[in-house]
Amino acid sequence: MTKWVYGFGGGRAEGDASMKALLGGKGANLAEMSNLGLPVPPGFTISTEVCTWFYAHDRSYPADLAEQVAAALSTIERELGSRFGDPSSPLLVSVRSGAPVSMPGMMDTVLNLGLNDRTVEGLAAASGDARFAYDSYRRFIQMYGDVVLGVDHYLFEEALEEAKQARGVRFDTELDAAALAELVRTYKGIVEKETGRPFPQDPNDQLWGAIGAVFGSWQTQRAVTYRRLHNIPHDMGTAVNVQAMVFGNMGDDCATGVAFTRNPSTGEKAYYGEFLINAQGEDVVAGIRTPQPLTRAMGAASGAAGRAMEDALPQAFAELVAVFERLERHYREMQDIEFTIQRGKLYILQTRTGKRTAPAALKIAVDMANEGLITKEEAVLRVDPASLDQLLHPTLDPKAERQVIAKGLPASPGAVSGKVVFSADHAERMAAAGEPVILVRIETSPDDIHGMHAAKGILTSRGGMTSHAAVVARGMGKACVCGAGDITISYAEKAFTAKGVRVAEGDTITIDGGQGTVMLGKVPTVDPQLSGDFATLMEWADACRRLKVRTNAETPLDARTAIRFGAEGIGLCRTEHMFFQPERIVAMQEMILSDDAEGRKKALAKLLPMQRADFVELFLIMGDLPVTIRLLDPPLHEFLPHDEEELGIVAKEAGVDVKVVRRRLAELKEANPMLGLRGCRLGILFPEIYEMQARAIFEAAFEVEARKGRTVVPEVMIPLVGAERELQILKERIDAVAAEVGRERGGELNYLVGTMIELPRAALRAGEIAKHAAFFSFGTNDLTQMTFGLSRDDSGKFLEPYLRADIFKGDPFQTLDQDGVGELIKIATERGRAVRPDIKLGICGEHGGDPASVAFCERVGLDYVSCSPYRVPIARLAAAQAALKAKKTH
Amino acid sequence: MTKWVYGFGGGRAEGDASMKALLGGKGANLAEMSNLGLPVPPGFTISTEVCTWFYAHDRSYPADLAEQVAAALSTIERELGSRFGDPSSPLLVSVRSGAPVSMPGMMDTVLNLGLNDRTVEGLAAASGDARFAYDSYRRFIQMYGDVVLGVDHYLFEEALEEAKQARGVRFDTELDAAALAELVRTYKGIVEKETGRPFPQDPNDQLWGAIGAVFGSWQTQRAVTYRRLHNIPHDMGTAVNVQAMVFGNMGDDCATGVAFTRNPSTGEKAYYGEFLINAQGEDVVAGIRTPQPLTRAMGAASGAAGRAMEDALPQAFAELVAVFERLERHYREMQDIEFTIQRGKLYILQTRTGKRTAPAALKIAVDMANEGLITKEEAVLRVDPASLDQLLHPTLDPKAERQVIAKGLPASPGAVSGKVVFSADHAERMAAAGEPVILVRIETSPDDIHGMHAAKGILTSRGGMTSHAAVVARGMGKACVCGAGDITISYAEKAFTAKGVRVAEGDTITIDGGQGTVMLGKVPTVDPQLSGDFATLMEWADACRRLKVRTNAETPLDARTAIRFGAEGIGLCRTEHMFFQPERIVAMQEMILSDDAEGRKKALAKLLPMQRADFVELFLIMGDLPVTIRLLDPPLHEFLPHDEEELGIVAKEAGVDVKVVRRRLAELKEANPMLGLRGCRLGILFPEIYEMQARAIFEAAFEVEARKGRTVVPEVMIPLVGAERELQILKERIDAVAAEVGRERGGELNYLVGTMIELPRAALRAGEIAKHAAFFSFGTNDLTQMTFGLSRDDSGKFLEPYLRADIFKGDPFQTLDQDGVGELIKIATERGRAVRPDIKLGICGEHGGDPASVAFCERVGLDYVSCSPYRVPIARLAAAQAALKAKKTH
Repeated sequence: MTKWVYGFGGGRAEGDASMKALLGGKGANLAEMSNLGLPVPPGFTISTEVCTWFYAHDRSYPADLAEQVAAALSTIERELGSRFGDPSSPLLVSVRSGAPVSMPGMMDTVLNLGLNDRTVEGLAAASGDARFAYDSYRRFIQMYGDVVLGVDHYLFEEALEEAKQARGVRFDTELDAAALAELVRTYKGIVEKETGRPFPQDPNDQLWGAIGAVFGSWQTQRAVTYRRLHNIPHDMGTAVNVQAMVFGNMGDDCATGVAFTRNPSTGEKAYYGEFLINAQGEDVVAGIRTPQPLTRAMGAASGAAGRAMEDALPQAFAELVAVFERLERHYREMQDIEFTIQRGKLYILQTRTGKRTAPAALKIAVDMANEGLITKEEAVLRVDPASLDQLLHPTLDPKAERQVIAKGLPASPGAVSGKVVFSADHAERMAAAGEPVILVRIETSPDDIHGMHAAKGILTSRGGMTSHAAVVARGMGKACVCGAGDITISYAEKAFTAKGVRVAEGDTITIDGGQGTVMLGKVPTVDPQLSGDFATLMEWADACRRLKVRTNAETPLDARTAIRFGAEGIGLCRTEHMFFQPERIVAMQEMILSDDAEGRKKALAKLLPMQRADFVELFLIMGDLPVTIRLLDPPLHEFLPHDEEELGIVAKEAGVDVKVVRRRLAELKEANPMLGLRGCRLGILFPEIYEMQARAIFEAAFEVEARKGRTVVPEVMIPLVGAERELQILKERIDAVAAEVGRERGGELNYLVGTMIELPRAALRAGEIAKHAAFFSFGTNDLTQMTFGLSRDDSGKFLEPYLRADIFKGDPFQTLDQDGVGELIKIATERGRAVRPDIKLGICGEHGGDPASVAFCERVGLDYVSCSPYRVPIARLAAAQAALKAKKTH
Repeated sequence: MTKWVYGFGGGRAEGDASMKALLGGKGANLAEMSNLGLPVPPGFTISTEVCTWFYAHDRSYPADLAEQVAAALSTIERELGSRFGDPSSPLLVSVRSGAPVSMPGMMDTVLNLGLNDRTVEGLAAASGDARFAYDSYRRFIQMYGDVVLGVDHYLFEEALEEAKQARGVRFDTELDAAALAELVRTYKGIVEKETGRPFPQDPNDQLWGAIGAVFGSWQTQRAVTYRRLHNIPHDMGTAVNVQAMVFGNMGDDCATGVAFTRNPSTGEKAYYGEFLINAQGEDVVAGIRTPQPLTRAMGAASGAAGRAMEDALPQAFAELVAVFERLERHYREMQDIEFTIQRGKLYILQTRTGKRTAPAALKIAVDMANEGLITKEEAVLRVDPASLDQLLHPTLDPKAERQVIAKGLPASPGAVSGKVVFSADHAERMAAAGEPVILVRIETSPDDIHGMHAAKGILTSRGGMTSHAAVVARGMGKACVCGAGDITISYAEKAFTAKGVRVAEGDTITIDGGQGTVMLGKVPTVDPQLSGDFATLMEWADACRRLKVRTNAETPLDARTAIRFGAEGIGLCRTEHMFFQPERIVAMQEMILSDDAEGRKKALAKLLPMQRADFVELFLIMGDLPVTIRLLDPPLHEFLPHDEEELGIVAKEAGVDVKVVRRRLAELKEANPMLGLRGCRLGILFPEIYEMQARAIFEAAFEVEARKGRTVVPEVMIPLVGAERELQILKERIDAVAAEVGRERGGELNYLVGTMIELPRAALRAGEIAKHAAFFSFGTNDLTQMTFGLSRDDSGKFLEPYLRADIFKGDPFQTLDQDGVGELIKIATERGRAVRPDIKLGICGEHGGDPASVAFCERVGLDYVSCSPYRVPIARLAAAQAALKAKKTH
């Protein structure tokens, strides 16, 4: 005989926490608590196997199920001394679904099952409270009618509203027993009218109806969709939990509450929670009465009114504390507990891992490891790496005054202040002049990219979390508030208004991209706290990880920030960003406007000392850490302006006719710049550009060696290689420059030449390319663009509908597409290592700071990840977790 | 003892044609002709193994080589009765390199070796012509000095020039014996001054010097580069051929000539060639004397002056004819023969497969098969598929008068006439009005694509064979002449001038893209001749091939043309091209300008009957052949104009403010349209577009079924799929439309839904995608763009330098990149077939008409290729050849 039903309660159970697949999460947990001897109201779980049977047999039950349910019910009756359907001492039960994984879309709960026209009287007598009994009955009919019988819940709400109006009262609680008895009659009438049958009076019929509703809900559209989205197998099935009701609203010796074993907001080791005397669970939530604090300390800290539970119900509180200790020791995690006190007796209804803020997660993990409750490795695994983002950006000084003038979506974290500008060109000009700016646009488009680069933060009045502004800002690591519908922008007037405040171009505002707030003026910010628990956890993480973590940085500020965050080198220094400063862009433009190699060389000669100085500074900051420098990548037209006025300025500075600038711009124009004359193609066509850059790098290395007596080993990286010969040719030229500089300085330099792998073809031909490359750095931004045929700048328009339709599991520019792009990385890794076993492999797209992508890099066996400075700690923690998980599975 | 030296001549040889690897191509061929008993001047070949030995032993020779060479030389001496270095009867020899494959960059030839200050007198006596003897000697010194001793040939030319000036003559031939003897002295002086040693007088020293120079030339930079480019192994080595000299310039019973066994221009079975009495080979080429025809018939046909050889030297001619017959029967190919007659005796110096025009190749192959000389399969293998291109396009009527006003590069074949326009927008407007136009630009850019589409032909004054215009025109199959430097274009005056002729906008010109000519006015053209030999060969080819050949076509004209060329279905019908006609583009624009689905549906309803009518017509033309229809692919902004004037017209027609058009255009603008909102992404976001198109297809199928009583099985193709869900969602919607149309018409339709594979991700995820696809069509144009990260429209700028630097082996948009893109096709093929063994696989990029790419498709096992109508015969022949070659290797 198959066992379909598993009892629990009374200090023992037939199941335990390990039996989640069979009993569902809730059922397994109730069994576990019973086994721990905790005061759990008795009940039983109908296993997930019944659900499977039910669907395999045309929605029918195994023959022996009824018998097993009846036996389990008798056990409850014996335990409590009450009987199902007995008017003198009625047993009431709750019926809940419980799948092995938590799943919205399933039938939730039916309470008070077992009430009927006769047992309601018995409940009135037993509780001495007719109002309570009839209120319970009418709630039961409403709930059962809705979720089991499919009666529109609106009909019940309307009847309740009419009852209140008829008696001239405002709240449900003002209806007395008689009114509620009358309402029960009305409710039964509604059920009969809608279903064609009277409301079931037999508690057994009620029970089987509810069980059937739970199993039926496994196949609702919403549940099916949820499973598809989360890759949950459809044959997993749900369990049904039937449990005796307990009441916290049968008098002043009754109460109900929720509690955490530690403070979920700060992580402090102190009990935390709220309760209400003579109340039901939903009253705590409904907000009609104000819940009281659990402890005096908590009351004092939060300024909450009301007597603390430790004073009001000292006996129950003491029992509860014992439960807290027991549960935390048992589960080795901070717990979120629901409890009810019925006539002085404590019942635990649920315990689960408590949700917490990012700082709390950090503190709890470190504390628990220090307490010896968990290991350091477990502590490392306990903190969600992505949540660190909240801890790493400057945040508003909590003590600072602020005038919030608008709210929008928290699209990209960080709190920044700057002068308002309304156009990308203007943003670029002001930023070049050293002014911090906030770019304010209705929406952004690909035309605004250069302005977004220049700005400290971005604010839009339209667009969602996957709008162009949001996607690009996150990619750039810029603070961004988007879709701030409160603000009205007039480009013509160069101003926006928000809540009656007018903000003109040049006025200073502050935005908080982590909160989605917009504030007037400059609000002071505080730098993130990187010592204490944070430092401790990161130290533990570093001890666990195999992957190195580098940073993408080109400015001294970024490099220093990254080192503070624990970066172990620069994985990507984008030299083009160095050309946008005012005195440099002029030389750059002069180079672009030259007709021949001679002219270009003359202009490049002006850039050489500046580039060299950049590299000297970076090498000095980075000390012994490796620095990978990518040679010029973007198409040349990115360095020319696009509006007429600016064209005139450029022409004047370069000493040419404006027609020349316009002609050159037309020549450089491309239908698809992403697929055009950029990357190493520039290097091939204009050898003098990379030669200047290589010279600047090598001269800088010699200079630092001379000044510090320390070996500098620069890593020169060629972008956009797609064919072996490209790298072969460029490496030869770079080697020639190195030899030349070596001769001039009378020394020899150690350096590496390597390549980005960012084209599908490069990944496929990695074996050949590896012959000339000391390292590969996967440029997953571009590799994603090419593999998907999807421009990051243009994807905003359809990313949201694509996510909604479940076409993409996530934004592929945020989290690496392991199925497609990932396969190319695997291919390149295998082929590259086959030819050159010691090849250094890393990743330098934005994915380098995404935890799931970092885990992928660990699995594929890369040597390092490189990400923006603020993501370095995230990557360190993610790398540690990935290493720990890999160890587990080996 | 290793045999290093192989003799030939005198009716026998130690080697034969099969020993190319050992004797090189030339040596093996000389041996073969000797074995045939042909009168080959005797000689010997030093094998390629000596070359290998030479490089393996620090450029030295095997010990016994000298002995073997001496023995072989003695054999020649015996044969001819003259002796090497003997002043009374000197033996002279030529020394030539000869690798197993023909290879430029190697030392070519040294003639007259064996001459010195004494033997020159012997030669003068023997020939009775002192001038001849000294001329031979000075030529020998010059050649030997240059290629063996490394003396700059400029020095010799200068001395020759001075000698002519000193004697006041213009031609070399005007120098007499004394002058030449003097020149010999000067030459020897030059050699001694440059090399520090006198010119070698010992014939043996001369011989070993020449042998060393041949082996040394194997490792010159040019030869090494050539081998790398053509994947020729460096250890293959070259042979050295030493052969007795014969002279056609020792009197009037001497002659020299070249001949073909059939007419290389027409393919006619008739001897063809030229000869000169008392002349050397180079005199035939130099053009100082006019060669005479071989036969009377040839003289009559070409109007060539001079007595035919069959009359002038009947005896030698009869011998020659016997040789012709012998060689053609032996080699089973038309031969190109060099011969010399020395004192009445015929010598054959060389025979090789003769080059021929495309029509000749066709005729010769068919004739030889009909004569029983070769099999039909061999005939099929004999014609270069690419050469058919010349036979398939309309060509100028040879009888028509024409005024050529300019010449440029023959960038894309076809002769077309049209009115001159100077802007893409204008071209589009006039073409839409039904006018044939020729787009004339200095250069084209991606902005001109729409105009190039609209034009019949393209003419540029700047740019090479891989310029933007050339690349794009070939891709589109448009006639194109580019880089016509003779013409000067003024956009301002809307006119161009060429050879003093002024051509204004609207004037008619004719261009011949196969010849590179530009003509004034409309020159009549003739349609290609597709019957006769062409039809015969294609029939034989069709019997050999496995791959089906379809066409890319959307207009009835294209479809009919393709059927005439033997297409077996439409592999790609690009529906967007159907939207560009005037009355349709208005509805299309209205659709694009609509704010919501309702507005779009209203506009689409106008397009429905037009699309349906298109499909009805196509289905009727194609009969039982399959038709694959691709749903809308390009980004919507391609349907909106970009200049202000046109915007106003569109606004008026759509009944909206011009601001709305401008705003929409700005919204639709993309940084990289190729990677933007296009293909199935449009289908996902705007379901009504594909629903209308599916409905038009299904209604058309029903209509044709009703009219013809024939089953139509349309193949609906979804573009740019990158994720399984995209296809799944769209297929569900298309199935729903099919079901709905079926209900309305009271019938059921057979149809297939499939997808393009044109994104790297689609290739990688082909297993999943195949679950929803009845067929895959590889869109290799886009797949190449994405795999290389290379925009076809933008690649013109660097394609040429890339080809020059050997980075790309060829234009990847012309010939499939088998290493990269090809691997993705292989992956997709394997994964698709694993999931759905009967999946139909084809290719529909321009590569479908490229012979090398077709061979790749055969090897990978695709089911069909699809290409533009004019390439269908090329693909048929290429497919047949690929199948035959595959059979051979199995």
